[in-house]
Amino acid sequence: MGEAQALVAAFAERLERRDWPGLAELLDPDVVYEIPQTRERIRGRERYVTFNARYPGDWHVEPRVVLGDDHDGCLLFRWTLDGESSLAVAFFEIAAGRITKVTDFWPEPYEPPPGREHLVERW
Amino acid sequence: MGEAQALVAAFAERLERRDWPGLAELLDPDVVYEIPQTRERIRGRERYVTFNARYPGDWHVEPRVVLGDDHDGCLLFRWTLDGESSLAVAFFEIAAGRITKVTDFWPEPYEPPPGREHLVERW
Repeated sequence: MGEAQALVAAFAERLERRDWPGLAELLDPDVVYEIPQTRERIRGRERYVTFNARYPGDWHVEPRVVLGDDHDGCLLFRWTLDGESSLAVAFFEIAAGRITKVTDFWPEPYEPPPGREHLVERW
Repeated sequence: MGEAQALVAAFAERLERRDWPGLAELLDPDVVYEIPQTRERIRGRERYVTFNARYPGDWHVEPRVVLGDDHDGCLLFRWTLDGESSLAVAFFEIAAGRITKVTDFWPEPYEPPPGREHLVERW
């Protein structure tokens, strides 16, 4: 298990517990948070912890897959917000034992394109 | 580096090369492919290779992050289709040296919710 895997597991656990000082300990002071889908970026540990602490609603993070080597980590998690749940993904970069970058993906449902029905089943 | 990491790297490389026999070698005969966003599922190596081989357009897979342990792997990649590109993510399960499950996520752009502009910059 790489160092990033342990950091990602701790990140998810402290986020779920709303342990904001504990979460901050895992983050580099200059951590960068990005959501490529909205092209949003947050710079710095203080703002990023505030963003999480003030995120509205009754939300929960349930890890499904946690992976990492010495530089990169990833988290597949079930995200539940006010009783509705979906799968989401985060990637992490680490350096000197702290998280330096978090990249979040929030995949939304969509209708499949036509032409592959003969290969596919729906659930 | 876990076994899954090597399998995921080979998967991406053979997909990009359209090496369909080589791709099939990496897959369990009963491999399951799922897209949670569309609730689509493809069962079996033959159908899944056909799905990839017939995927329309000029598409390219450029790995950004490849991670894996002895059971799970993940791939963050730049997906380019007919000149338009975005980031996408796949998770993998492996057993006995072959890929038994592939789960794809295709995150689409969306507008951010209001209320966090004071913490965020856009790009």
